[in-house]
Formats: sequence, structure tokens, C-alpha cells
Amino acid sequence: MATTHDLSGKDLEVSGERFWVSYRLDASSEEEANARAREIAVEQTVEFPEDLIPPGAIVDHIIGKVHQIEKDAEGFFVAKLSYAVEVTGGDITALLNVIFGNSSMKKGLRVEGVDLSPALAERFSGPRYGRAGLRELCDAHDRPLLCTAIKPLGLSNKELAALAYDFALGGIDLIKDDHGLADQPFCPFNDRVKRCAEAVAEANAKTGGKSRYIANISFDAVNLPERAAYARSVGVGGLLAAPGLLGFATVKRLADEEAVALPILAHPAFLGSFVVYRDAGIAPGLLFGQLPRLAGCDITIFPNHGGRFGFTKADNQAIADGTKKDLGGFIAPSFPSPAGGLNLARIDEIKTIYGNDAVILIGGDLHRGDDLIARCKTFREAVSR
Amino acid sequence: MATTHDLSGKDLEVSGERFWVSYRLDASSEEEANARAREIAVEQTVEFPEDLIPPGAIVDHIIGKVHQIEKDAEGFFVAKLSYAVEVTGGDITALLNVIFGNSSMKKGLRVEGVDLSPALAERFSGPRYGRAGLRELCDAHDRPLLCTAIKPLGLSNKELAALAYDFALGGIDLIKDDHGLADQPFCPFNDRVKRCAEAVAEANAKTGGKSRYIANISFDAVNLPERAAYARSVGVGGLLAAPGLLGFATVKRLADEEAVALPILAHPAFLGSFVVYRDAGIAPGLLFGQLPRLAGCDITIFPNHGGRFGFTKADNQAIADGTKKDLGGFIAPSFPSPAGGLNLARIDEIKTIYGNDAVILIGGDLHRGDDLIARCKTFREAVSR
Repeated sequence: MATTHDLSGKDLEVSGERFWVSYRLDASSEEEANARAREIAVEQTVEFPEDLIPPGAIVDHIIGKVHQIEKDAEGFFVAKLSYAVEVTGGDITALLNVIFGNSSMKKGLRVEGVDLSPALAERFSGPRYGRAGLRELCDAHDRPLLCTAIKPLGLSNKELAALAYDFALGGIDLIKDDHGLADQPFCPFNDRVKRCAEAVAEANAKTGGKSRYIANISFDAVNLPERAAYARSVGVGGLLAAPGLLGFATVKRLADEEAVALPILAHPAFLGSFVVYRDAGIAPGLLFGQLPRLAGCDITIFPNHGGRFGFTKADNQAIADGTKKDLGGFIAPSFPSPAGGLNLARIDEIKTIYGNDAVILIGGDLHRGDDLIARCKTFREAVSR
Repeated sequence: MATTHDLSGKDLEVSGERFWVSYRLDASSEEEANARAREIAVEQTVEFPEDLIPPGAIVDHIIGKVHQIEKDAEGFFVAKLSYAVEVTGGDITALLNVIFGNSSMKKGLRVEGVDLSPALAERFSGPRYGRAGLRELCDAHDRPLLCTAIKPLGLSNKELAALAYDFALGGIDLIKDDHGLADQPFCPFNDRVKRCAEAVAEANAKTGGKSRYIANISFDAVNLPERAAYARSVGVGGLLAAPGLLGFATVKRLADEEAVALPILAHPAFLGSFVVYRDAGIAPGLLFGQLPRLAGCDITIFPNHGGRFGFTKADNQAIADGTKKDLGGFIAPSFPSPAGGLNLARIDEIKTIYGNDAVILIGGDLHRGDDLIARCKTFREAVSR
């Protein structure tokens, strides 16, 4: 008895709706670029020798389609592919897998952009607050928002809460845990977030301000939503989550959770390898702009150009674009949050890139001089100019 | 009133126990390498201007220490740093953040290796089954294990189960979902895993074999442990999980969960950007060898050299080493699982790298010819030689 199987997909039904992914390819000729694009279309879907799939629904619908190949300004070929929306199952993990799962292991290939279709976009509720909601929460309508971090790691919860208190007195809108603060024995999570939330509330009572304390939730996967709900119950004003460490789906789950319902700040930790070389990985505008927004993040933190990381002004502009561009259906714009060794002297320059639509994150530089509160007020005045 | 704060860490208490991370650095002189190593030590811990931290416990214990810098065979500098075990809080997410969180965004820097200390290693239970346990489960004591995938994506659950049945009849030990199979409308998860588990059990009843069906769990973050427990309840024999998509902590959680207690196969999807360039990211032996093992994976799948991904024989050897080398405390060895376009003709060559201690994964090539079962038997004979 022969044991061949019908691999044509005879029972397959799909809607015909497709979504779009652009890949930038390193290739020496249009012919090679075509071959590489075709290879991606197969790798990212059936991952199976094409000659073994008979004509039928799988060939017609499941294997990715190459629609167009063009050269970009830098001489790379950019291939535009489409995939059936059904191949993702509507989930962000499966979506990322279709976009770049196995192909992430190929040299000279970068994901440039993604355009969802309406049915797929509908599966993503996006940022719960977004730009407009955060401006309401912080009562900050016509200026960039201010953000800083309580640190260095190694301080006690009491010391961290004292810092948070002074930052709130100084008028910082979002006072976040440094992303290295997890659940260390010298600054345990539950105690820390309660103390810091209380300290910020106390300062707000004194100033009439609306500062918010943002707790870092990027550790351990057990009881993550419960931990986030606890944070909310003690008055935490938002969560810091690193999609590179937790996974985009876990961050999305936190953002979507009704028992949490807090603004989410995406941190770039552990995502750097996707952007450190220009001809590989995922384009910065997609990785730090569109994707965290799709995962429900209200704010996306990333290195500003000219700091200690190798980002360019064009990268920053692309990220800012990714926080607001159309994603194929209504998904609220998020705030870009430039960071990475920024200082007060650079605020005017930062505003030339982002205008008022940014959350400016300054860390260590606020500690220069002998009056932290005064320095925060200077920061506030500088962004409001 | 001056509002300066004491940032020396006066209340800090740490055990003094440290763990080790090696970084390979691109630098033009030993002086530059030293400066870069020092920069990492600060970036990965306090992320704060050093001149603003007064002498005290934070400088003495929390900031990473640079112990040694040497040139490797390729002319790169390798810096050995240590960190206090307490900075991680004992959690894999925080550990990865300390190892490479922000520094992932720096060019010309690769994480080479990690050595845990006993107290830190104790926090990781490692693979539940490991090599010895899997050999027991599969009753395969003196040969490599065999693995294949049911695919292509686009088949119905009935068709996928029929494939699983024939693979089991042919003597394949581990019959896994293709990693693109998620919860698509044309192959919904619950129905698929039940049908496939039943098909493999039926084939086992016929042959007396011990084939196991491995369900892909790498989608959506909501109810993941519940979904895994359901898979177990319908007879699934293991789970396929992609740490690059789900996050290492989520995979570890699945591995540690007593209500699941299934072998875990790590899939490399979405991890490629960490290894695609040799002077950036994370060394393959660490990324595909040590880290999945630390996250409790019993098997780690990765591209074999000479296939359609650019891996070298040395990478494969490093991964195999990472699946068994000492991690600073007892953590069971896992199985390396070379894959990526392998075919029957390459089995002898594969065995020269891994000996019998591997799970050899062949996908599409098993479908060549007109008798799938016979071809599986040939595969089984070839690995048993």
C-alpha cells in the first residue's frame, strides 16, 4: 500500500483577505532578489519543498505572494509580500512568526514595514490610553510629557520612594522604576511599588499635580497579571514592560487585561540585536514604533540619536512615524519616548524632531547639582517653552 | 532646603556571591577594550553616571566588575565580568536583562558565555526530563532520536493527524507540529492536538512503539498554562515553544508547571537576529545551548550547518557543548536537535558531530518518494547504524 498524502490543501477555505510585509534584501541582481523573496514567501508559511506541494489551495492561498520588488535609495532591493490573514490566527505571536520567525536567521534581510488589513487590525485593540488618554491623565495638553527613572539599582525601597517623592514635587509626569529594578532582595517588588505609589500620591496632594509612578513588571512570568493587578490596587500609575524580555504577546496581554487597565511603557531592553546592524533584523520604525503599539503600549522608549547608542536622527523620525501611522484599522497613536543619556541642554533639539508629541526621558542628568527638585522644575520649564 | 540624596547604597546588603559573563568586544586597542568593558559593567547594572555615585556599597557590589580582558583567536577582545547574584533577583528575565538588556543595542559586542554561581544555579530546575528522561520515554537508549514535523500549513486537522499516524507507524520518536501551526481557523488548536495525539496513540498500539506527538504552543499569551494542561489531558507527548516569540521566562514557566510536566522542545523562530552577525548578539552556544536549557527545555532545535541558514560546524559544536556543559550547579543536559533542510543522505555526517546524543529533525525530505512509512523506516535504520 502506498502511503502518499494529498498535500494540496483540498479542504482549505480562506477569506482571500491578505496583509502586507516589506523586506529589504541584500542581493546583487534583480534575479537574485526575486529568488530570495520567493524563498521568504515559502519559509515564512509552509516551510516545505515547493516541488512536493501539488497545485491547489495551499499554493494559491497559504504560500506568501511576492508582489513587487524595487530598489531603495541605498541600493537595497525591497520586496513587498502578502500573506493570507488566516495564517496568523489573529494573534501577535503567530503574526510575528509569519513576518520573521525563521527568516530572522538569514543574513542580509531586514523587515521594513507591515500593513495590516482591516480584519487583522480589528484583532488588536492597541493602546488603551494612547496620546490623548495620557494627556488627560497627566493634565498636560500642550507640551511634551516628562519622564525620569528612580535609580541607581542598589538603593533601598525607602530611598527609591524618597526620590520618587522629590521627582513628583519637581513636576515630572511619569516617574518610572529603572528597568533593572525587578524583585531583588534589597528592593522587593510589592513593598517598593506600594511605597513609591504612596510617595507620589503624597507629593501630588501637596502640589495639586498629577504625577504617576510607573512600576517595572519585566521579570518572572508566573503570576504576572496578578502582580500587575496588585500594582494597580496600591495606586501605581502605569507599568514598564520590555517586549524583548517578556515577549510581545505577554505585554499585549497585560495591556488588554481589564483588571490592570494601566498605561504601558515599552522598554527596549534585549531588543537591540534586531537593529544593531542596518542590513538585518527589523527596521527601527517597525520594532520600536508600530510593534509595541500593536501590543497595546501607550509609550515606547528608545535611544535618541547622539547618545551612547548608535541610533540616527532618521531612525528616531521613523520611530515617531511608527507611533502614529495608519496600521490598517484604527489603533490609537502612542507616544515616542526618546531616552539614553539625554540631558537638559538637548531639549530644544529634541523638540525639533518630535514637537510636543513625545515623552522626554532624562535620567542621571537630573541628579547634577545639589537641588534635585529645582532641576526637575528647570526640565519642566524647558519642555514647556 | 537642599534636595540631594545619598546614592551610595548605605542600606545595601549582599552576599558577596557573584556570577560571570564574558563579552567579545570590537576594539582597536586594549585601552579601548577596557573602556568598553567598564561601560558595559555600568550600563548593565546601575545605568547611571558613575561620577554621581559616591563611594559605598553600590560601587563596591552592584556595578559589574571587569576581571580580565584577553584577545581571542580571531583578534577580538574578550572581557570577563562578574555581577552580584542579587542583581538578578534569581529570575531568568532579570538575568537576561543583566546579561544583555541595554547592551544589546551596542554595536560590536557579543555575549560569549555565562557561568552561574551555585546559589544562582539553584534557582533553575532545568529540563524536567533531559537526555536520560527522554531516552526512557521513547525507549531509545543507544541511538539518536528521530523527529519530524506535520506540515505544510494549510492542511486540515484530519490530514495532519493522518500524517502523524503514518510517521508513528514509520517509527519516528517525536512527531511535532510545524512551528507555523498555531490556532488558525483551518487547523484549530484544541481539535488538532486531540486528533493528532489520538492518531499517534493508535499507531503505537499497532506497533508497540512509543512515538510522541508534540504540540506547538507558541501563540497567544492568554491561558497558556491552561492550554498546555489541556494538551496533556488529551495525550499530547510534549510541547514546542519558541523562546524568541514567547520570552524565555514564559517557556520556563511552562516547563516548571506541575500541571503540564511535558517535555519541552525549544524552537529558534525569531531568535535569528541574535546570531546572524558574528560580532553582535549572543554566541550560538549560549543562545541555543545554555539558555533554552536554563529555561527548562529538554530539546533545542537549531539550523545545522550546510543547510539554508548560515550556521557553521563550529556553531553546531558550540551548541552541542552548551546542551551539556556545567552551568554552575546541577542542570540536566538537554538534547541538541539539528534541523533546517536536512535529508537522509546527511545522517552519517550529522552523527560525526553529535554522536548518538541528538534529536535529528528531518521535515520535507521524508515526503520524497511514494511511501512515507517506508521512508521513515529508512530514516530509523540510518540513525541506528
